[in-house]
Amino acid sequence: MRTRTQVGIVGAGPAGLLLAQLLHRQGIDTVVLERQDEAYVRARVRAGVLEPGTVRALCDVGAGERMLRQGLVHGGFELRFAGRGHRIAMDELTGESITVYGQQEVVADLIDARRAAGADVEFEATVTEVAGTDTATPVIRYEQHGRTHELHCDWIAGCDGFHGVCRPPESPAYQRDYPFAWLGILASVPPSSDELIYARHDRGFAMHSMRSPTVSRFYLQVPPDTDLAEWPDERVWKELHLRLATDDGWRLAEGEVTERSVTGMRGFVSRTMRHGRLLLAGDAGHIVPPTGAKGLNLAVSDARLLGDALIRRYADGDEGPLDAYSDTCLRRVWRAQDFSQWMTGLLHRTEGAEFEQRAQLAQLAYVCHSKAASTMLAENYVGATGM
Amino acid sequence: MRTRTQVGIVGAGPAGLLLAQLLHRQGIDTVVLERQDEAYVRARVRAGVLEPGTVRALCDVGAGERMLRQGLVHGGFELRFAGRGHRIAMDELTGESITVYGQQEVVADLIDARRAAGADVEFEATVTEVAGTDTATPVIRYEQHGRTHELHCDWIAGCDGFHGVCRPPESPAYQRDYPFAWLGILASVPPSSDELIYARHDRGFAMHSMRSPTVSRFYLQVPPDTDLAEWPDERVWKELHLRLATDDGWRLAEGEVTERSVTGMRGFVSRTMRHGRLLLAGDAGHIVPPTGAKGLNLAVSDARLLGDALIRRYADGDEGPLDAYSDTCLRRVWRAQDFSQWMTGLLHRTEGAEFEQRAQLAQLAYVCHSKAASTMLAENYVGATGM
Repeated sequence: MRTRTQVGIVGAGPAGLLLAQLLHRQGIDTVVLERQDEAYVRARVRAGVLEPGTVRALCDVGAGERMLRQGLVHGGFELRFAGRGHRIAMDELTGESITVYGQQEVVADLIDARRAAGADVEFEATVTEVAGTDTATPVIRYEQHGRTHELHCDWIAGCDGFHGVCRPPESPAYQRDYPFAWLGILASVPPSSDELIYARHDRGFAMHSMRSPTVSRFYLQVPPDTDLAEWPDERVWKELHLRLATDDGWRLAEGEVTERSVTGMRGFVSRTMRHGRLLLAGDAGHIVPPTGAKGLNLAVSDARLLGDALIRRYADGDEGPLDAYSDTCLRRVWRAQDFSQWMTGLLHRTEGAEFEQRAQLAQLAYVCHSKAASTMLAENYVGATGM
Repeated sequence: MRTRTQVGIVGAGPAGLLLAQLLHRQGIDTVVLERQDEAYVRARVRAGVLEPGTVRALCDVGAGERMLRQGLVHGGFELRFAGRGHRIAMDELTGESITVYGQQEVVADLIDARRAAGADVEFEATVTEVAGTDTATPVIRYEQHGRTHELHCDWIAGCDGFHGVCRPPESPAYQRDYPFAWLGILASVPPSSDELIYARHDRGFAMHSMRSPTVSRFYLQVPPDTDLAEWPDERVWKELHLRLATDDGWRLAEGEVTERSVTGMRGFVSRTMRHGRLLLAGDAGHIVPPTGAKGLNLAVSDARLLGDALIRRYADGDEGPLDAYSDTCLRRVWRAQDFSQWMTGLLHRTEGAEFEQRAQLAQLAYVCHSKAASTMLAENYVGATGM
C-alpha cells in the first residue's frame, strides 16, 4: 500500500478524478481514495447536463471519446408555463450548446482514462482523518479492507462532496435553505421531448430531462421532508402529467421507474476553498440548488483551476495560482449560486405567496419575450458569462 | 358648479391630468376634481425619471415644451458598489434615454396645458363618494369650499392615488411588503454627478439623483418605522458620504436641505383596474417600490391606454378597448412590478442575510459585466421591453 504521494485526492467523483487525470498526465504522482466500491460509483445517478467547457475539459484529458459519441447535444431547452412551451435557443443566443450525458458516465470514463494512463483508484477506502494541513507534510488516514493506512502528501485535494470529511467541520460558510426538495426518477422510456423541459406550474416545478434515447429523467418539486414511500410510481406519473400538461395536448410517455430519490435543496459556499495544504474542490466546498444544472460543471471548473495551479507549483515553484485558487474559484461559484437561485425562483412555487406567483409569471413571460433576458438565461446556462 | 360631465376624473396627478388632456383634445367633456389646493399640487415632490414613452405622451398633448427645454436627458446611470462605479449605458444598449424632470413640474405643465386648452381643474374638491358605478349613470359626490356637490358622469376615472377613495376598499389585490423605506431629501446644491447613482453598500442602499442643475435629490434606505426626527441633516449627509464613497475619492457636495420625507416601500396590484364604469389609473390601482422609477411612468401609460379606450368608445361606440383595459394595463404593471422587485433586491441590504449579500454582489458584478444583463436592466429602466 502506498504511504507517500505528491497529491492525495479524497473522492472519486468528477472533481477528484479529473484533477487526478490532469496531474497524472503532467507526471505528478497522485493517489485517489474513494469510500464506495467501484460498481456503486459507476451507477451513482446524479446530474447530467454538461457545459461546453466541461465537455472540453473531459476531452482534453482523454476522457471524452464515449461522451462525444453518446452524449446528446442540445441547442435549446424549453420553459413551459401557463400551458405553453417557449424555447430558449441557447445556440442562437450564445453560439454554444449543452451536452446531456449522465454524471456516472463521466465518472466511468474518467476511471477508464486513469487506468489507460497507468494509474488506478483506491476504492472502499474510508478516510478517517486529514491532518497536518498547516504543515508541509499533511497526511491522510484511512481504512481499507479492515486495515488502517497513512498516506503522506505534499498537498491534499478534498473532493469528497458536501458530506465528506475533508472540509473542516467548523469552517465558516454562507448558507441558504430552500423550502423545497426535488423528487427524481429515472425511467426506461424514450424521452417525450427532444430537449429538456423546465415547467412552472401552480402545483409546483416539474422537469423532463433525459439520459439517453431510451432513458428519461424527471423531477418534481416536493416539500423538503417528503417521504418517498408516499410517492408510488402512479402518483409520480400523475403529478408529472398534471404539471407538464400543455394546452395543445402534448403527451408524456410513461415507463418503468428504475431509480427514485428525494434531494433537499440548499445553497452553501465555504468562505475559503483552501486550508493550508488542503484544497477543496466541487461539492466539498459549495452546493448549489440543482435548477441551473451547475453542480457538476462547477466541480469540473474547480478541478481544472486546481490542476493548473498545482502543475504550476510543481513546474516552477510558483505558488501564485494556488494562493489565488480560492478567490478565483469562489467568484465563479457565486456567479453560479446567484444564477441557480434566480432560476430556482423563476420556476418554483412558494406556498401562499400570491404576489410572488404573479410576479413570477410576469418574469417568465419577459424572459421568453426579451432577447436580452433570454440571452442572460442562456449564457448562464451554458456557462458562457465570461466570469 | 357643473353637475354633469362625460368623464369625471378624481385626482390631479399625472394620470388624471394627462387623461383629462387626452380626452379634452378629442372633444370629450371632463371635470377634474383635486382634494389639495393648486399651490400644494404644484410643489408636491415625487418621482423625477421619465421614460421616453412618457416624454412622448406629454409632448403629444402639448405639455412637453418646458420639459424639453429644462429636463435633463441622461443616456446612462451608475451602479456603485464595493467602492467602484459602473456605468449602464442605456443609450448604447437600447437606443433610448431617460429624462430627469420632477413630477411636480409635469403636473404644473399639464395644469397649464389644460388651461391653455380652455378647461380647468377643481381644486380643494374632496370626493366623499363614488356611487352607481355598476349603472350607466355613475355619480361623484364631493365637497368644495364648504358645499356639497354631485357630479353625474358617463364614466369615472379613479386617479386619486393609493390612499384615494375611488378604489373600492374591499377590492381584492396582490400585496408585498418590503422591510425598508426610503428617506428622501431635496437639497439646494448642484449634483455631484452628471448622471443618477444607484449605490449598494453594506450599510444599505443610497441614491444620488437630481432635479435640475442646481437641485440635488438623495435617498437612503432606512427601516420602515423610521422617525424623521432621528435624522437631522448632519446625520443624513454623513450617511450619504459613507454609502456613496468610492475608492478613488469621489466627492459629494452638501447643500441646504429644502425637503425631507420617509416613504415606506410596498408592492400592490389590484386584481382589476375596472369596476363597472369606474376605471382606475396610476397609484389608485398599483404601487411599485421606487427603485426602478416606474410609478410615474406606469401612471402615464395607464392614462394613455384609458384615454385611447374612452376616445374609441365615444368615437364609434366600441367598448372593446375599455373591456381590455384592465388586462392590458396589468400586464405592463406586472412587468414593472417584477422589474422593480428585482432592482430593489439588487441594491438593498437585508438584515442578517449574509448569503444573499454575497449573491447580491455577484449579481451586481454580473449585471455590469454581461452585455445581456446590462441590456436587460437598461431596457426595463427605459421602458423598452416591448411588453
